[in-house]
Amino acid sequence: MTQVKRVDVLIIGAGPAGLALANWFRNSPITVLLIDKKPGPTQRGAAEGLKSITNEIFDSYGIGPQIAAESWRVEEIAFWGQKKKDGKSGGGIEREQVIQDKVEELGKFRETTLQQARVEYHMQRNLLNHENINIQYNTRPIEVKINESMSLLHGIDDVYPVEVRLVKKTQVQSEAVASNSLESSTTPPTVNGNTPEEVKVEEERVLAKYIIGCDGAHSWLRKQLDVQFEGDLTDSVFGVVDLVPKSNFPDLRRSCYLGASTGTILMMPRANKEVRLYVPVESGTSFSDPKDLTLERIIAAARDIFSPYTLEIGSVSWWSAYRVGQRVGSHFSRHNERAFLVGDAVHTHSPKAGQGMNTSIQDAYNLGWKLRLVLQKKSPFNNPEAARRLLATYESERRPVAQDLISFDRGYLKLFVGQPSSQFDTEFLRGMKFTTGLSIRYPAPSCVVQLPRDIKTSADLGPSLVKADLVPGKRLPDFQAVYQADAVTCWIHRRMQATGQFRVLVFAGDIATHQNLSDNIQELGRYLGDESNGMGRLTAGRARALVEVLMIHSADRAKVELLDLPEVFRPWSDEEGYNYWRVMADAESAHEGHGRVYERLEIDPKKGRTLVVRPDGYIGAVLAVDDFDGLGAYFKGLGML
Amino acid sequence: MTQVKRVDVLIIGAGPAGLALANWFRNSPITVLLIDKKPGPTQRGAAEGLKSITNEIFDSYGIGPQIAAESWRVEEIAFWGQKKKDGKSGGGIEREQVIQDKVEELGKFRETTLQQARVEYHMQRNLLNHENINIQYNTRPIEVKINESMSLLHGIDDVYPVEVRLVKKTQVQSEAVASNSLESSTTPPTVNGNTPEEVKVEEERVLAKYIIGCDGAHSWLRKQLDVQFEGDLTDSVFGVVDLVPKSNFPDLRRSCYLGASTGTILMMPRANKEVRLYVPVESGTSFSDPKDLTLERIIAAARDIFSPYTLEIGSVSWWSAYRVGQRVGSHFSRHNERAFLVGDAVHTHSPKAGQGMNTSIQDAYNLGWKLRLVLQKKSPFNNPEAARRLLATYESERRPVAQDLISFDRGYLKLFVGQPSSQFDTEFLRGMKFTTGLSIRYPAPSCVVQLPRDIKTSADLGPSLVKADLVPGKRLPDFQAVYQADAVTCWIHRRMQATGQFRVLVFAGDIATHQNLSDNIQELGRYLGDESNGMGRLTAGRARALVEVLMIHSADRAKVELLDLPEVFRPWSDEEGYNYWRVMADAESAHEGHGRVYERLEIDPKKGRTLVVRPDGYIGAVLAVDDFDGLGAYFKGLGML
Repeated sequence: MTQVKRVDVLIIGAGPAGLALANWFRNSPITVLLIDKKPGPTQRGAAEGLKSITNEIFDSYGIGPQIAAESWRVEEIAFWGQKKKDGKSGGGIEREQVIQDKVEELGKFRETTLQQARVEYHMQRNLLNHENINIQYNTRPIEVKINESMSLLHGIDDVYPVEVRLVKKTQVQSEAVASNSLESSTTPPTVNGNTPEEVKVEEERVLAKYIIGCDGAHSWLRKQLDVQFEGDLTDSVFGVVDLVPKSNFPDLRRSCYLGASTGTILMMPRANKEVRLYVPVESGTSFSDPKDLTLERIIAAARDIFSPYTLEIGSVSWWSAYRVGQRVGSHFSRHNERAFLVGDAVHTHSPKAGQGMNTSIQDAYNLGWKLRLVLQKKSPFNNPEAARRLLATYESERRPVAQDLISFDRGYLKLFVGQPSSQFDTEFLRGMKFTTGLSIRYPAPSCVVQLPRDIKTSADLGPSLVKADLVPGKRLPDFQAVYQADAVTCWIHRRMQATGQFRVLVFAGDIATHQNLSDNIQELGRYLGDESNGMGRLTAGRARALVEVLMIHSADRAKVELLDLPEVFRPWSDEEGYNYWRVMADAESAHEGHGRVYERLEIDPKKGRTLVVRPDGYIGAVLAVDDFDGLGAYFKGLGML
Repeated sequence: MTQVKRVDVLIIGAGPAGLALANWFRNSPITVLLIDKKPGPTQRGAAEGLKSITNEIFDSYGIGPQIAAESWRVEEIAFWGQKKKDGKSGGGIEREQVIQDKVEELGKFRETTLQQARVEYHMQRNLLNHENINIQYNTRPIEVKINESMSLLHGIDDVYPVEVRLVKKTQVQSEAVASNSLESSTTPPTVNGNTPEEVKVEEERVLAKYIIGCDGAHSWLRKQLDVQFEGDLTDSVFGVVDLVPKSNFPDLRRSCYLGASTGTILMMPRANKEVRLYVPVESGTSFSDPKDLTLERIIAAARDIFSPYTLEIGSVSWWSAYRVGQRVGSHFSRHNERAFLVGDAVHTHSPKAGQGMNTSIQDAYNLGWKLRLVLQKKSPFNNPEAARRLLATYESERRPVAQDLISFDRGYLKLFVGQPSSQFDTEFLRGMKFTTGLSIRYPAPSCVVQLPRDIKTSADLGPSLVKADLVPGKRLPDFQAVYQADAVTCWIHRRMQATGQFRVLVFAGDIATHQNLSDNIQELGRYLGDESNGMGRLTAGRARALVEVLMIHSADRAKVELLDLPEVFRPWSDEEGYNYWRVMADAESAHEGHGRVYERLEIDPKKGRTLVVRPDGYIGAVLAVDDFDGLGAYFKGLGML
């Protein structure tokens, strides 16, 4: 007998992308089913590097500290090249340069390494006490149908245009998990293959409002949606090994790029005294088929590159060999924004830039809040057109990122697998801004990214905004301020938890010195709290408000009294009294220094500035602090007013 | 039938002191039984404030991050006094001063608040995977006998001079826990009282090498040991309430001392929007018996003091009323250092200085490593005299601390319950150094604290050492350095986990510039690795070595190669290769600034310095960097060589 389930969101694949997406629906009534054909969570190996902005996402999910505690920090990157003798290259390698792994704008969160299994563990654990989110292993989809006319009715309850048939193994045989190949481990199982007698197969029917494929490079959903995967497998094969090295190589605890005459290696330090080696193998050699690449051969190649330094093995915890694919999907969503593809399911590339797991999680982070807004009770997006327009920005924002990544990766790969190059480190430095994700700028104007008045294209933004990175469509630069009420420090991205709320950040300026600023704040308070203009409905409701209003002033903290500010900045609750954590000062912390927010963001303390920040931490609008209409226009444009 | 158990250490009381003590025995073969008459862990209320050096202890147990994540930080302290009108005191209160809660020497760890129940939770959880440590609830001791002649045979295996009879309830009735009174909740139950039919009582006999009473102000063990509890209950009664306030008082999120004409209040912010109020009630009033003090009366008193500000109650999570005892035990150990008393069992005082739980944990921290050294396999303390001398320092070090605390507390209390005083904040500032624990200086010379050569008393120490706080018997000032191998920052107290190891900290100076320093390090390396002088035996054994050697140099980090240093600074393991985390540089971190260690500790980079740091982070000896004999003398004096 076939069971029928109804869920708001069906996610295929409980890897990093699927789990990151599911985390957006915590503390909401939105029902989510996450299925995976695996018998359980990933146990080891696979992706590893965590970019700073990914760590920031974990923090917005409340699991930053746990992940940080287990992660290994990368502080330095060393470049090693062929040893020069009298200007010519001789035998062996030598250290050419050591650089700091640092980008100022990233703020609190840093680049770290932690294996995918642990990343998944924490994201999965974070879902445990949320009854609206369920994970079902041993389950795979076999058929999907999407009702085209129903699919247009976004925002209307009880409309489930997506119908999926699933098969679920209820008793699992001991699977010979193909752990020595990333490529083969994501190969979809044969639906009609033989199932041994001891495995019972059950069929389920699921009706969903939205379906999302987070099912990896061999995505089943991508094939069902007729999305073309454009690009090719390259000729390059990579060997990857996690090992405890016994070696006299002096930079084992730095990230290293080694370019010897015998080949190249990318090495990253990990926890537990391990390092990870990426060893690319050129085409045309006997290793051009990943199946021929054994652990012994990878180690032998690594040993040649390390020479004259020794490389003995203490222990190997995981290894793999695979061919690099560089491809991007023709579409990121189909069927009137009812079906989406996320992560490896729509783009693949080499592991060197450390972008795989990171980009997958960031894709999911971009999509999740949009789905949440559309699906939540009393959604402001009950207009189907507004809802669809919002959801369509997933493709318009994330597909260019994937394309840029593929082009970047293609150049990077050529450099890496070719002869050692003196340009490599320069390229690397240039690339760091890219790989951190800081150069991402979502297209403007769109319904979620508004350009300043009288500006038609992003190119017309003034130099000050660009210099300070206060650009609509870019991620808000992280900064530290201190709370007015208790002087505790606050990093803005940590403050903005993933609740689905927009934030209005009011940089009120020096309100203690300038009466006009102080007057303006009173007026702004009235505007934001006004039910008749609609803003009052968005900002009211306290913790559940669609828009949270925060202030960062630059006045002498001792001269500001929180309770003298308008109520929207310290709302009252009949259960808990005032909210003390909406007003911050750009001030010195006794323990953690001065954030210098106004200076870094080039905001004039005599003028101030207002930002609309999207639920994912990207800037939606940059406004003059007295531009109330501009503020209203952002939410009107979205369809929320 | 009476069972017989043999354990190395029997701890009575699984509160903060008992759990802190038990944590010292993780990762050791030493068997520990922790009993408590309670049916399970504390659920709520009781002690709250965590001093910085207590947080540092948690960190050395590996549970710092978890506790920090749950704790509430205190950044500012506000003083409120009677409102002045024309120089005279009028009605109501006004803010007099706000000061930062900051003491430079404390380094990374700060003052926080977290309720005792959560502190216990984390310490208990930290014991879970250690089979050598067991906690048994519903169990209380009824008889103890200590064999006097056996008690002298410290360090000799299979000698169990302590015999204890326990009773254990195996089925628990629902106890009416006296949660509205701290005083009564620690009243020992009547041994021969009536037990309802459904409770089975089992008797056990335990043989132990050491017994430790962590059983609170009404300590059963203290009475059995005939230790006098000197001092008196004072006349002051305290009401304590944890509540969510609804109030227009502007400093609810600061620690506050409120002195109104109608009384005084001490207030601390807590997590979850709660605050804790301590309301002292003067003698002679109708509240002089804690039993007469109801929640309503405490709130009414608080409301009078808050006036003209409002004080309504959102919710109350816990409250209590008790009389302050100011007492200290005549002895901290008995029976030739076979029986010890820790925490409230030997000293009690008022809650205002926030010292109760903190001092208990610090007592335990002082005793734990000494017991661990004496009890460990192949202990260097198999000489009974040396072992007893080491254990005797628990009383000689901790009793003066308790006495100082009582005197401090007595003065503090008078100030606090008397009329509001303008001297209060000055006293408070002076007291902060005391309450942080930074002024603690264990007596010297002793077997664990060695004075520099040619110095007979601590008074003769030069001004430089005193200024830098590099004083034998004081806690090593915390500092930040970066690892030579990977540039990751390291705070020295976080680095020195509670493993029972002594540390030799070699401040090697600028070894890249000064050849004599570099030569000296080579020679020191030989000395420390030499088996014939005995030091080689102490430093060898890698992770399990009794003495861990660390270096902090002040040279240009780029000019130092780790593998050029002597092996004791980067020991080799056949399983894991080199150890990369024994050498640090006093250098700039890309992400966390410069620790300026040499400057702060007044160490000359041209000369260097060597410190012996005890397993509890206190300084054992301060030596010239080439004083190898002085180094050996410390361990000889202890009986370890």
